[in-house]
This record gives sequence, C-alpha cells and structure tokens, in this order.
Amino acid sequence: MERSCLAVILAAGDSTRMKSSLSKVLHPVAGLPMISHVVRAIDAAGVRNAALVVGRDADKVTATAAAEGVPVEAFFQEKRLGTGHAVLTARKAIAAGYDDVIVVYGDVPLITPEPLLEARRALAAGNDVVVIGFHTDAPTGYGRLLTEDGQLVAIREEKDATEAERAVKWCNSGIMAIDGHKALDLLERIGNSNAKGEYYLTDLVEIARARGGRTVMVAASEEEMTGCNTRAELAVLESLWQKRKRREIMLSGVTMIAPETVFLSHDTVIGQDALIEPNVVFGLGVTVESGAVIHAFSHLEGAHVEADATVGPFARLRPGAHLAEGSKVGNFCEVKKAEIGKGAKVNHLTYIGDAFIGADANIGAGTITCNYDGVNKHVTRIGERAFIGSNTSLVAPVSVGDDALVASGSVITADVPAEALALGRARQEMKPGRAVVIRERNLAVKAAKKKG
Amino acid sequence: MERSCLAVILAAGDSTRMKSSLSKVLHPVAGLPMISHVVRAIDAAGVRNAALVVGRDADKVTATAAAEGVPVEAFFQEKRLGTGHAVLTARKAIAAGYDDVIVVYGDVPLITPEPLLEARRALAAGNDVVVIGFHTDAPTGYGRLLTEDGQLVAIREEKDATEAERAVKWCNSGIMAIDGHKALDLLERIGNSNAKGEYYLTDLVEIARARGGRTVMVAASEEEMTGCNTRAELAVLESLWQKRKRREIMLSGVTMIAPETVFLSHDTVIGQDALIEPNVVFGLGVTVESGAVIHAFSHLEGAHVEADATVGPFARLRPGAHLAEGSKVGNFCEVKKAEIGKGAKVNHLTYIGDAFIGADANIGAGTITCNYDGVNKHVTRIGERAFIGSNTSLVAPVSVGDDALVASGSVITADVPAEALALGRARQEMKPGRAVVIRERNLAVKAAKKKG
Amino acid sequence: MERSCLAVILAAGDSTRMKSSLSKVLHPVAGLPMISHVVRAIDAAGVRNAALVVGRDADKVTATAAAEGVPVEAFFQEKRLGTGHAVLTARKAIAAGYDDVIVVYGDVPLITPEPLLEARRALAAGNDVVVIGFHTDAPTGYGRLLTEDGQLVAIREEKDATEAERAVKWCNSGIMAIDGHKALDLLERIGNSNAKGEYYLTDLVEIARARGGRTVMVAASEEEMTGCNTRAELAVLESLWQKRKRREIMLSGVTMIAPETVFLSHDTVIGQDALIEPNVVFGLGVTVESGAVIHAFSHLEGAHVEADATVGPFARLRPGAHLAEGSKVGNFCEVKKAEIGKGAKVNHLTYIGDAFIGADANIGAGTITCNYDGVNKHVTRIGERAFIGSNTSLVAPVSVGDDALVASGSVITADVPAEALALGRARQEMKPGRAVVIRERNLAVKAAKKKG
Repeated sequence: MERSCLAVILAAGDSTRMKSSLSKVLHPVAGLPMISHVVRAIDAAGVRNAALVVGRDADKVTATAAAEGVPVEAFFQEKRLGTGHAVLTARKAIAAGYDDVIVVYGDVPLITPEPLLEARRALAAGNDVVVIGFHTDAPTGYGRLLTEDGQLVAIREEKDATEAERAVKWCNSGIMAIDGHKALDLLERIGNSNAKGEYYLTDLVEIARARGGRTVMVAASEEEMTGCNTRAELAVLESLWQKRKRREIMLSGVTMIAPETVFLSHDTVIGQDALIEPNVVFGLGVTVESGAVIHAFSHLEGAHVEADATVGPFARLRPGAHLAEGSKVGNFCEVKKAEIGKGAKVNHLTYIGDAFIGADANIGAGTITCNYDGVNKHVTRIGERAFIGSNTSLVAPVSVGDDALVASGSVITADVPAEALALGRARQEMKPGRAVVIRERNLAVKAAKKKG
Repeated sequence: MERSCLAVILAAGDSTRMKSSLSKVLHPVAGLPMISHVVRAIDAAGVRNAALVVGRDADKVTATAAAEGVPVEAFFQEKRLGTGHAVLTARKAIAAGYDDVIVVYGDVPLITPEPLLEARRALAAGNDVVVIGFHTDAPTGYGRLLTEDGQLVAIREEKDATEAERAVKWCNSGIMAIDGHKALDLLERIGNSNAKGEYYLTDLVEIARARGGRTVMVAASEEEMTGCNTRAELAVLESLWQKRKRREIMLSGVTMIAPETVFLSHDTVIGQDALIEPNVVFGLGVTVESGAVIHAFSHLEGAHVEADATVGPFARLRPGAHLAEGSKVGNFCEVKKAEIGKGAKVNHLTYIGDAFIGADANIGAGTITCNYDGVNKHVTRIGERAFIGSNTSLVAPVSVGDDALVASGSVITADVPAEALALGRARQEMKPGRAVVIRERNLAVKAAKKKG
Repeated sequence: MERSCLAVILAAGDSTRMKSSLSKVLHPVAGLPMISHVVRAIDAAGVRNAALVVGRDADKVTATAAAEGVPVEAFFQEKRLGTGHAVLTARKAIAAGYDDVIVVYGDVPLITPEPLLEARRALAAGNDVVVIGFHTDAPTGYGRLLTEDGQLVAIREEKDATEAERAVKWCNSGIMAIDGHKALDLLERIGNSNAKGEYYLTDLVEIARARGGRTVMVAASEEEMTGCNTRAELAVLESLWQKRKRREIMLSGVTMIAPETVFLSHDTVIGQDALIEPNVVFGLGVTVESGAVIHAFSHLEGAHVEADATVGPFARLRPGAHLAEGSKVGNFCEVKKAEIGKGAKVNHLTYIGDAFIGADANIGAGTITCNYDGVNKHVTRIGERAFIGSNTSLVAPVSVGDDALVASGSVITADVPAEALALGRARQEMKPGRAVVIRERNLAVKAAKKKG
C-alpha cells in the first residue's frame, strides 16, 4: 500500500478498575504487553508511524510501544476530556499530513491487521471516515452503527437510541480510520455541548456527513475488538488469545490432548507431529521441533527442544536449555543454560545448570551440578557416554570425560579423565543391633517430652 | 435487625445417589463442608439459633454445623414423611417463639445472606409465608411459583401444572421464611392426603392464604439456590463456587492468567497486584500478600507468603510455611512448618521442614533437613547469609551460624559456628580406565542373563 | 442376537488435514487408537467379523484393529472413488453372506453399541437399509434425513436441498446397516453420474426404495457420531470422551473436585469414595481402590493404588508401581516397578525403582534406589519398619533388613542386616572463619572477571 498512514494509539486511561500499580496497557496477554500486541497489528497493517497518547506510566508505556519497531511519538494527555480530545493531543503528528489516520486503543490486543487494512482500503476508495464495527448478539451498552444505502449515517449511543435502533446488532468498536488530509479539520469541529461536556470521537461521522463526506463501516469480529477494564476481563482476553493460538497450532499438525490446559506465549513455536500432553506451560521464547513429546506438567521457558526429544512429566526447562535430538529430560528435573546432547538422558530429580552434557550420557537420579558458589556461576562439562551415578554432586567448574563413570553418592570436585571411575564417598560401616537401641532412645525422648 | 430468628436446617437426607460413606452435607465445597457454608450464610443473615434436622451421620453433621458459631440444636428425624414432617421434627425449637422462622437445606452451599435477609424483611412487612424463588430458562422439574397482584398464590408441582403454569419460569427453591408466631399452627395444618402420603412444606402457601395470610416470593439467583444429589452435581457446585471466588479476587486487583485452572479455598486471601499463574491449588489457610508471584504448578496449604515473595513453579508449601518478604521457594521444593527469611532462596529440589532460615541465606539444590528420626521431629536453624552447598543433609537438631558455609554433599550433624566452613564428605578417588572394565563386566552380566 | 453380522469399517482416508505422519484412525483418544474404539463398539453390538477398508498405513491400521478380538480382514482401497466404492472394496467379505452388514467409520471413537444394535433390530424387523441419524441444532453442512410416514425416503445433501429440507435437523451420520443378503446387489447399483464422478453410499436409500425395499432411520446422539478431520477436532473428541467418562466415574461415587482437570484413560478404574483432586493425569492401566486419595498434580500410569493409600501432590507412579493399603507416596517422588508395603511412606523427593519396600518402612527425603548400572537393572529390598535416612543412595542389588536403620546421607552398597545401623558417610570437619575467606576470594574472582 503506497499511502502513508499514522496510527493514533489511545493509551492514557487511568484504568482504576484494574486496581493495579501498572498501567492497563502494560499488562501482558500471552506474555506480551497489550500495547505491544496493538503496535504489532498496526505494523502488519502497513502503519509506519504512531502517535501514542499517554497518561499514567507514560515513560514505560512509550518505551514498551516503541520497542516493537514502529517509530512512536508520545503525547501526554493532561486532562481527560473525551476521546475526541485525546486524539487531538496528537495534533502535531496528525498535522504532519498522512494519507490515512487510524485511531486505535491500547487495550485491544486481539486485533488483527485485516480490519485495519480493510478500513484503509475504504479510505483509498474515497471515504472520509471509516468506522470498524462488529456484530454481536448482545449489543447492550455499545453504540450502534446506523447504516443506510451502504453508508454509515451515525453512531448512536444506547441512551439516545430508539427502540428500532437498539435492535441493531452492529456495534461501534471505537476504532476508526480518517482521511488524513481532512482529519485535523474534522476533529476540531467536534464540540462538547453534551451532558458530560466531553469531546466524543463518535461525532466525527455526522460531522463528516454534514460536510458532504462519505462515511462507511467495515466489519471486524467481535472477539478481536474485545477490550479490557478489569483483571477479570484481562483473563477473558488471555483466554480468547490462547484459544486462537492453540487452534492455529493444532491445525498445523500438533496434537494437544487437552488444549484447554496448554498455555502458550506469543512467540511459542511447535513443529508438526509434536505431542503436547495436558497441563503444559510455555513461557517466552520456546521452540519445540517436530516429533518431540512434552509430557504433562511441564514448564518451558527460553528453551529449544529438538526433534524427537522428550520432556517431562514434571520437567522444568529454563532459559538456555537446549535439548538435542532424541534426548530426554524427565520428572522433577530442572535444566538451565545447558546443552543436553543427542540421546542423553536426565531422567529423575536432577538439577543441570550451566552445563554441557555429551551425547548418550546418562545422568543418574538426584544429580546436582553445583554451579553457584554464592558469588559466581561455574560450568560443568560431561563427556559423551559418561555415566553419572545417582545422588552425585558435581562441584563446578569441573569436567567428566567421555565414557567415564562416577559412582553413586560422590562429590566430584576434580576433573575426571575419560574412561576413569571416580568415587567420592565414605566406606559403609555397620553396627549390628544398633537400630533397636537408637529407636528405644528416641522413644524415651518422646516419652520424656510428653511428661515434661 | 431486631427480630429474633430461628433457622430450621434440613440435613437428614440419605443421599444415596452420592454413593458415599459420608452424609451428603459433610462433603466439602472449597474445602468447607456444605452444611458449614449454609450455617455461615444464615449467621450473616442475622440468624442466632439453628434447629438442625439430622438423620444419617447425625453426630458428625451436628458437630460440623455447630462449629460455625451459631448455636445449633439437633433433632433426629426417625421417619422420612416429607419436608413438612421434617420441619416439624424441630417442633420444640419452633415452639420457643421466634419472630422469624427460616427453613433452609443443608446442601445449598452457594447461598448468600441477601435472599434470606430479603425474606426476613418481607416477614417484617407483614407477610406470613415468604418463598425464595429463582428465575431459570430451564424450569422443567421444578415447582412453579404462581403469583397474582404481587402475592404468591401457590407453588405448583410440575405434574399438576397446566400448560400456562408450566411456562412460568419462577421456580421454588424450597427455602422459605415463616412468621414465627404462626409457624407451628400453619405447619401442623399440612396434610398428607396425596399420592405418596407425604407432608409437603409447599402446601404452606395455600394453607396460609386460606386463613387470610399474605404470602410472597422473593428472588434469589438460580446459582445460589443450586443443590446437589450426585458427585457430578457436587462438582458443579464446586465449579460455580470457584468461578465466583476467582472473579471476586480478580476484581480486587489480582492477576490470574488462567483463572479456570486456579483452585481456591473458602478462606484464601490474596493481596493486590499478586500474580497467580496457571495451575495453582490453594488448600486451606493460605494468605498471599501484595505483589507476590505464585508460579504455575504450585500447591499451597496453611502457608503465609509475604509481599514480593516468589513461589514455584512446582513448589509445595505445607502448613506452617512462612515466606518473608522477597524470599523465594523454587521448583521441586517442599516447605513445612518453616520460616524462610527475607530474601532467602530455596530454589531447587529441597525439603525444608521444622526450620528457620535466616534472611538472605542461600539453600543449595538437593538440600534436605533431616527433621525426623523415626519417632521425633527436630529443628534446623540456618543463619543469615549462610550458604548451604548442594545435596547437603542437615541432621536436626542442628544449627548453621550466620555467614557460615557448608560444602556440597556434606552431612551436617554438629552445629556450624558463624563464619565457619563445614565439610562432611569423602575425598575423591580416581581409578583410571576402570569405567571401561566395569562396563564390560556389566555387559557380560547382561549377556549371561540372556543366555540363562 | 442370532443373526450374523459383518461390519465394514472404512479407514482408508488420507486424512491430510490432520497433517500427521500417522493415519488418522491410529490417533488415540483416551490412550486408545480411534479405530480400536470403533472395533470395541461393533464387538459390543454383536458383530463377529469385520472387513477393514484400508489405505494409508494399511499394515499398522490392520494390526491395531485386529488386536481388539474381532477377526478382521483387510481390503486395500487403491483408488478413492467415494464411499460406495470404498464399501465395495470389501466385496468378497460381503459376498460371504451375512444377515446384517453395517458400514461404520474408523474415526468415530465415541460411538456406543446402542445405535448399532438398534439398526440391527430394524434390519431384523424387515428393513433393507437403516441409516443412523442424529438430531442437531446446527445441521449446516450435513446431509438431511428426509422421512415420511416413519420411512426414510432420502438422504439429501445440503447443496441439493430445498429451503424446507434444509430446515430438517435430522442428519446423516454416514453409518448404515444393510440387509446382508441384498447388500451386494444394492451396492452395485450405485452409480457415479454426478458432478464429482464418485459413488455415494447415501444413494442406497433411494436405490432400495426404488426396488420396493423399506428404509428407516434410527437415532444416535450427535456426540457419539462425531468424527474428526483435524487435530482440533481430535481434541474435541478427546474432550467429549473425557466428559463422558468423568461423569460415569463421579456417578459411581468418586469425588472429583475439578473433573475438567482430571484426564482419564480408556481403562482407568477408580473405586468408590476415592478422592481425586484437581490436575491428575491417569495414563494407561491404572487402578485406584476405594478410599484412596490422589492429590493434585499427580501422574499415574500402569499403577495399582490400594484402598486408603495416598498419592501426591506432585507424585509420579510409573508402570509396575503397586501401593499397598494405607501407604503413601508424596511430593516429587517417582515410583516404578516397585511394591510399597502397607503403611509404608515415601514422602519426599525420592526415586524408587525395581524395589520392594516393606510394610511400615519410612523412606527419607531424597532417597534414591540406584537401580541401573548403565547396562542392567538391579533390585532393592527394604524390610518392614526399616528407616532410611534422608539423601541415602541404595546401590542395587542391595537389601536392608527389617527394623534396620540407615543414617542420612549414606551410600549403601552392602546388605544391611535386620536391626542394624548402617552408615556410609564422612565425618564432619569444621574450618573456623574459612567461610569468610572463601567468600572474599569468590568476590575477588568476580571483580577480576568484570575488569577482564
């Protein structure tokens, strides 16, 4: 699309009903702040400049929005005098003269580029004001879009609507596209002679028409126009987002036994024929390749799981976990910033941090890489086909060579050469009959306590 | 409200469809027996005396109901001759002469005080019988409330209803308030000349009217009037309760990413700006303060999590776990009857029981407080800024001083002074080439097994 | 039922929309391939022979179907020329002369025997073709079943339907029963003079009627007729199956606090008065007896949990785990191929594999049975009332006698006699003031790194 476009993003709300120490638009959906979702959508709709109208948490909101790649200019809204007034806060940006101006909200993270592109096409076709509407079976509370002969003739607030108008099920999303060369003139004509003394952006339709302009509605789904005023509504947005993304991933050839129990992030990537069991949480930055199996009760973040690797149940992969093809990380295991080689196994009750595990190595149950000395982190290296006995402590920095063997219960503080056996444990002693004596003593202590 | 009020709670049912070894009203919702929810609701509605009509598990039901603070007198119902008969089992209590008598059921745990208060206000306004009704789009099976000129004229059972009466969507909840000074007289007029030969409480409306009394309906939500006859219906009650409580908590400023996967107890308290990730279970007695983060797959019971502390993922806090401000309990960690000091970290695969962990202490992965000797439990004390190396066993009673350091893999049986280093582990030995020999031997064993 | 019956199971689809490396009918629902569910349903409907029409993954599909006990003859469908053509692929089997021929699909795993039996009864009553239909409020896309005077007169595809016909809410499931002695003659009369040039099984109704035959519809629920073309639809099938099974189990007297978070397998057995908390996954082959408690976040597979035993939270029982009466397996514990004796406790962070744990034994936190030497698996035996201290490694093959005691942090490599105390740990050493020195050194390293 050759036409230039400015998006005016309204993100100045106090959002008091969120009862939050954070501005509403910074609350994440799928791990990404709501405002960032909106910026990504306008970016995908060909918008190259954004004017951000901010209030609360202005700096954080601006920085977050600007991190998405679209140049953002922030405008601070001092007073709250209605949506029309909010848009004019960005007067300077609008005055720069774009072909299209789109007004969007910072709290509609489910928005897709399609209706924005459709609205821009409607501007290109000669319309002055284009309102994005949605159809709903429950229109109560929304402004209704009144159309005649394909033109949008008014946005009627519910309280002003006739019985017939209330029956209309096309509603105003609040999102609007305006002919950029007429926008400032039209916006400045919005008055505030109403009960609340506010400037309503919705007046633009009638203002444009009064001046002979053409105004139309374009349709979006109700879902993508959903906004949020409370944490309960935020949870609804998250839920809608999750449903959409799960469905997309399943249709691409991934099995989810119980998709409603799988939580994805905005950047989760899962390959075909992967199997995701119930109750899996994907934090940010996870890639799972084809044929991998993520068992129930697994939690992944910043992890890369290669083809045919197996994770869980009850596994936690933290940032920097990289599981090579066919490797396994099993129950009650945590892996952080570590490479698990091809076919290597970390099956039970293990912590692997800051480590390199060679191909086909076997890490016994209860193994701990002691990577932290209280101040610094150190690296553990385990060779290929090495066998680490259960309950071993590997005090980093330390390395175990290829084909080496570490005996169960050892504390390994020095490097183990390839093919060597390392032991670090005490010899077993036996005291016949002593268990009975100890138990009796313990029982005596208990009896004494009761008396005492 | 100055008027005295008796609640007659019907809780004598056999509840055979529950297929349970426990009386239905003792089954918990949100961790609290159903009967207890009902007693709390009547308490909040100003009821100061309760007559409990019991049958199965009479003693347990009575003890449970009486534990909620409202004085409860139990009446054993020998025969089951209908609801009217059941209420009269408590004849002695009713005869004591209250202004208001409310008849409620032991299996409606979602009931709120509002409709009860409303019904009492209707009695105060001069009505003789007040029936609590609810509106539903699916009235099939319920008795319909027939009204004329604002008066309730009859409760019509479905089988006796005309086509027009069946179309009525106001239904009888079974809960009723009766002028306490007329109650006994009215109740005794209920007859049993019907197909089943039972005494129906619902007849009270027509009896009162026949004697010139005024009878009205007051409205409750369908949800709060929901009862339960099977475990499947019990699960529905639990689900409705959870939805209500999650919503209330979210609206107070708590973020739940996936509220449908968070399970709360009746006494769960969560502070503003806390974040609850998916799949968290709150058992009884949990308080989470403002700004704390409860990561996915956490299980808390009887725990106190202070501001900005972090729990999980995969953490289990048991009764007596107290996490001070900014402390962390991480994955595959269990904490029981223990104080975790300010900023202290218990991050991986650890069991802390009967312990005091000082501020800013760091407990390494795989640490175990050996608190149980088979008979008695003993206490472990860890000083401030102490560093416990991974895979350490702390054999209680034992203490580690401030700023002390315990080497990885140690078994600590004696107190460690402040600033000391303690070690309890064997020196590492190395046997070059030995791993290869062992593997060959093991392979030979395998081959022999196959042959054999 | 004395009549002989052949089922023709259509399972040759390419199922490209599944985007799978596996044929659609092999995808499991509740842990059992879809095709196996179908074979079990026809088995329960008295079918004793099945003709399986296969294409993709022919051998695997045949082997899977044949594993369910009904003799299966496979017919490979070379070309895809419509359902009528597909059925005729099994011409040889049909020609063998059965009383009843039922045509079913391999991707309807929720089907129950009832409608199949009903259809067979309709054949026995003299009908030639019986179509299984279902009633739905959303019939769009389905062929409509047009009836007159109790007879089915046609199956009308939506595109050919009149307005009135589209309003019909009885739809064609595709499943059909045919008089076995007329089946071949009728099937061969299906033509392909239509837009796609395919042979449609649905033509059978009109063909039979044109020859004076009687054709009727029998009803099934919409749910059980649900098929699947994508992984998203597969998830819907799984979800419907789970709801059905959870409800059945709850009605039998099992409490599920949040049934929507409990995932069952086709063979899960749970006894009365068992309690299943939220977030429990039952893999294949699990039996839980009466009164057992399965706490939240537990994962069971191939396990037998006896009466009043307790599992979890965060427990994993793997195949061969057998928990005797009143025993406990607690958080972050894994049990595999092991007997846990009556009243024995395995409460925290433990791995028990290939083991026998005696009655009333207590296994301390962090205990590991070192059952694998890299090549072979070995057995651990723990006696009755034995007490295994925390963080112990039991290097199998090894045994600990009755009433014996193993000290915390020990590595046990030799058998421990009954009543003996065994220790295998180093003596604790103390270095006063050394912790401070080490911390300073570590801080110096850190500072050097920063500079460097």
